[in-house]
Order: sequence, then C-alpha cells, then structure tokens
Amino acid sequence: MDGFPMDYEMFDLGNFRLQGGATIRGARLAYKTYGELNAEKSNAIVYPTWYSGRHWDNEWLIGEGKALDPSKYFIIVPNMIGNGLSSSASNTPAPYNAGSFPNITFYDQVEAQHQLVSGKFGIETLALVTGWSMGAGQTYQWAVSYPDMVQRALPFCGSAKTSEHNFVFLEGVKAALQADAAFKNGCYTEQPTRGLRAVGRVYAGWGFSQAFYWDRVYEKMGFSARLGVDLAYSSLEDFLVGYWEGHFLGQRDANDLLTQLWTWQHGDVGATPGFDGDHIKALQSIKAKLIALPARKDLYFCPEDEEYASQYIPNGEVRVIPGVWGHFAGSGDNPVDAAYIDSVAKELLER
Amino acid sequence: MDGFPMDYEMFDLGNFRLQGGATIRGARLAYKTYGELNAEKSNAIVYPTWYSGRHWDNEWLIGEGKALDPSKYFIIVPNMIGNGLSSSASNTPAPYNAGSFPNITFYDQVEAQHQLVSGKFGIETLALVTGWSMGAGQTYQWAVSYPDMVQRALPFCGSAKTSEHNFVFLEGVKAALQADAAFKNGCYTEQPTRGLRAVGRVYAGWGFSQAFYWDRVYEKMGFSARLGVDLAYSSLEDFLVGYWEGHFLGQRDANDLLTQLWTWQHGDVGATPGFDGDHIKALQSIKAKLIALPARKDLYFCPEDEEYASQYIPNGEVRVIPGVWGHFAGSGDNPVDAAYIDSVAKELLER
Repeated sequence: MDGFPMDYEMFDLGNFRLQGGATIRGARLAYKTYGELNAEKSNAIVYPTWYSGRHWDNEWLIGEGKALDPSKYFIIVPNMIGNGLSSSASNTPAPYNAGSFPNITFYDQVEAQHQLVSGKFGIETLALVTGWSMGAGQTYQWAVSYPDMVQRALPFCGSAKTSEHNFVFLEGVKAALQADAAFKNGCYTEQPTRGLRAVGRVYAGWGFSQAFYWDRVYEKMGFSARLGVDLAYSSLEDFLVGYWEGHFLGQRDANDLLTQLWTWQHGDVGATPGFDGDHIKALQSIKAKLIALPARKDLYFCPEDEEYASQYIPNGEVRVIPGVWGHFAGSGDNPVDAAYIDSVAKELLER
Repeated sequence: MDGFPMDYEMFDLGNFRLQGGATIRGARLAYKTYGELNAEKSNAIVYPTWYSGRHWDNEWLIGEGKALDPSKYFIIVPNMIGNGLSSSASNTPAPYNAGSFPNITFYDQVEAQHQLVSGKFGIETLALVTGWSMGAGQTYQWAVSYPDMVQRALPFCGSAKTSEHNFVFLEGVKAALQADAAFKNGCYTEQPTRGLRAVGRVYAGWGFSQAFYWDRVYEKMGFSARLGVDLAYSSLEDFLVGYWEGHFLGQRDANDLLTQLWTWQHGDVGATPGFDGDHIKALQSIKAKLIALPARKDLYFCPEDEEYASQYIPNGEVRVIPGVWGHFAGSGDNPVDAAYIDSVAKELLER
C-alpha cells in the first residue's frame, strides 16, 4: 500500500509450504532489526507483530534503558504473514491474491520466522520471545515449536489456544466487515470502507474494558509511545471515529485483516505437528521460563485463559496487568501499562 | 409482519407526542394481559418487553405457582413502541415509516404504558414492575416517572442509565447492520438479511459470557421456558446460526431494531422531565422497594452499573444472579436462572 515507511528488510522464503497444504510462491517476510547480534549469537530477541499491527507499532517497547535495549540485544521484529508487509492477500500476484490467499496458522508464522532467525542470522538460541495479542500467540508457538531454542517467553494479552468466546468475538468482527457489499467476497477494487468502519465500532467495545468507558479515559489517554503523540478525544463519538475507525482505515486491507483473523481464530499450540491436537501436551513441552501477562479486564483474552494454560507449563507463571485498559493495556498507548510490561520483561531477562 | 400470533390487544394512544417533539399519529400499544384485575385494582403488575422481544417472549416468568401468578395478579405485558407490534417503523404508514420513524425514549415508553394502565384499566397502584434488559430500563423509568404508583420494582439485567460501554457495544451492533448496503438507509423493500445475520454474530460474543463458551454450555442448554423447547446445539457454528442468526432473522425488522437500539442507547432516568438530566436526583426520588438483579458475568449490563445506581435508591438493593450465562441469564432460556429470578420476585412481592 502507498505511504508505508520503507525502513524494513525483506527475507525471501522461497516457495513456502503451509501446514494446510497450500504454497505461497515467492513468499517474503518483512522484518526490522534493532541493535547488533553479538559474536556468540546469544542476545537475540524475537518480537512478532499483532492483529493489524506492523513492526513500527512494536517499537514503543524497544529503546535504550528499556528491557528491550538495542545496545544489549539484537531485536528482530518479523511482520506476520498477512499483515500487508510480509506476503499477504494485498501484495501477492494473482491467482493467489485477494480471497484466494491461503490460510496461515501460528505454526506457519513461526516456521517462516525461524527460517529468518536461523537461516539468515544463524541464531540457535533466543534470549526472549515476546509479543502482544497475536504476538503473544506467536510467542507461545515459538516456545512449543522450538523448546530448546527459546530461553524465555513473555506473551502479553494473548493465549496459547484461542478460546471459543474469543473466536465468537472475531466472528462478529468478520461478519461486520463482510456485511459490506463493497467487500465483494474479497474481490473489491477499493477498500470496503463502510465495513472497515463497522469493524472499528465492533472492536471498540471489546478493545477497552467497561471501566475504561465508565471513567471516560478516552478524554485523557496521555502519551502513546506507539503513536508518538498525546491522545485525547473530545467525546465518545470522537474516540470511535478518531481512534477506532481511524485505526482500521489506516492502510489496512480487508482481505489482509481476514487472513490474520483466520490465524487468530485457529490459534492452538496443540495443532503443532507431533502433538496430535493435544494442547496440554504441547504446553507441557515448553522449556522456556515463561511469564504470561494478561490484562485484568481484557474482554477477549481473559486472564482465566492464561491461568488455565499456565498450570501445564513447567516454568510458567502468570502476572496480571492491573488497570482498566483491558486488552489495549498491551498496545503501548498507555504509559502506565507500558512501564509495567517493560518492568516484567526486565525481571524475566535477568533470570 | 406475517405469521405473528394475534393473541394480543391494541390500545389506541391517539396522536402520541414524544419527548423529542415528534408525534406518532394514531399511535398504538400492543399488549396482553394475564389474570384478572381485582375489585380494589391493587393486584396489577407491569412487565415490559426487551430489545427485539415481544410479549410472548416474556411469558416464561408468568404462570400458576410462580411469582407472577395469574390466579393472584393481573399482569400486563406492553410491547415496546418500536418492537414491531406496537407502533413501529415497520407498521406505521408513510411518511413516518422506515428511517423516518421518530426516536423514542424510555420516558415515552412509560408514558404510553401509563395511558394504558391508568386510562384504560383505571389502575392507580402497581404491585410490581419488572422486566429484563430494556424491560429493566423501563422498570427503572416507571419507578422514577410514577414513584407513588410503583410499590415494588424488580429490574433484571438492565440499568437506570445506559453506560458508555454499553452504548459502544450497541454502536457495533448498529454498524454491522448498516454496513449491509441492502439496508439502503432504512428504505429497503426486503430485510437486509446479511446485516441481520451480522448483528447476530456481533451479539453472540456479548450475550453470553466468556465462561459460557469455555464450558460449551450451548451443547446442552436445556429447556427454554421462553421458547418451549429443549435447546442443544451440535457445534459452535450451529449455535451461531441457529440461536443467533435465527433470532435476528426471526420476524425482526431492521428499522424496528434501530428504533429500539436508539431507545436503549439513550436510556437515562435523569432525562425524565423535572430532573434536568440529573440521574442521581432521579434515582433518589424512587419510592418503590427495588431489587436490582444483574447477572454476575453480564458483559454489557455489568453488576457495577446496578451497584452504582443502588447507592442512590432509598429502598434499593442488589442481588447478583450467579452462573455463567451473562446477560442471557434473564432470557428465560436457562431454567436455573429463571428459577432464581422467580424466587426473588416472590420474595419481593411478599414485602
């Protein structure tokens, strides 16, 4: 899409065969790195993107003095396949474009990232894998796919297996988008903006907690380290249009959103080859020191999901991000939550 | 609409002037009564309908041996204006039909119902007002509009003032419906079924709690006293189509749903004339013995809303419906929750 920053690299995945049987021909992984890989190749961190996010949306957690300090670590942010920068419906040539872009699993995402990490950089150990939301899903998947490689894992506001309620929430998002006839079953020539705005409005009630709205936090959100600006909205409607509709109209492609949505809905570490669908066995195989960081009032990645998974992870632990931001505690838009996540990341990296 | 039961009466409201300034000409209130009004006219109960509900959807709480026993009480179930039976976009002649049907407040709803109760039946005291969801909103409104008339009030899973989060949830519902181009800004000739199905899918995540889906309660819901059948769905998708899409395709009109949605979004007892927008003052004026019955895991009418309101209601009290059904604890579809609500209604009626 037009107007994207070009501050990233492309890794060639060749003909990338997917878990579901399809092949992305000439598949590419867009990524950005921060800091330098040390001689022992022991200081690498992988920090995947989230639903509709791009690598620059992750940068708020990276910086001098922070846990993810580029003067200490080599931080790789791979863009999810389907996010519009890596291979996606929106940038793949016909006939595999648009509604015919294949389904991608979390396992596929991590396989692609592993090719980059191992194949290009020769890295065999990861000091940390971390990520928000679907980035947390990829974190769990890394810990299951490569248990000997992942030393530490910090999934925040995400789960090892997408719960059925979470799946249903996403059905609502999907149905709102597809209700727009301009979507044309994926064969649109212009973005179905009415549907994208509807997605924003459906999402708005889920992204933040009831208490966030009760307290009208949107009137004074403060400095967003993600967006680099002070956020404040003059009314609820202003927030719905400015923050939510704006997010989904902001260089997001409808088919790409559906690709990522499918990945999310089908998140399940038990689907990793070798575990025969058994997510408990998959969780039990994790060797990483893992701290799961759900947000207290997250409405779709409830803390209960992480508590459930944690009981099976040998070195698993759960800390709950306090406050009223709900899922978006992990967005980087709230300085208090951002500091909390950073402090836990520091603690984990010191273990 | 075709195929509706004709087991109800029509009360003529004449030219019914609304709080917002519009007039519904030849306005009509559809209602049904159960039991007999006693000579003292002291045994009347008003039990309004809920969003998309019709009087027959309320009947599960009425019956011999139940709190709402027609051998003891005269129970009036008025259909909300806008629900498709009372005056609505779908049954009002042009030019006031379709997208030009006016906005109705909870105050308007209760004014219309008061004309029926007082004007037609000559009732000056109500033993109880009760209702689910928007029916609870009307219950609060009754207690504020007619404090000397309402002896007891039992709002379940609803609030005196619609919270901003609840408003936002409804924005998502509305946007999903309106994303369907077949909606044609309300000027459709056939129902926008794609949008109505999308509404069902958006609603699905909100109507029941995360734990409901976690436990897969939909596989064995049991006997629905509302629908008169055993409910059980063979898969999540079966539930989404059968229960949720089916609900909104089931003789629901898109414009009528939007009329009711506007009423809901603007629920506020403080908007009652004389209170100048001050909902606290309005709550303080309630004289009824009132028990609010939120459901523990209700995602849009959170127990916190009722706790907040209760502190200002002189004879107010809150009991929380336990369990995982969330908002739909009050639907009549769960026998356990239905029995709980009935037992509290009995207790309140004995005071």
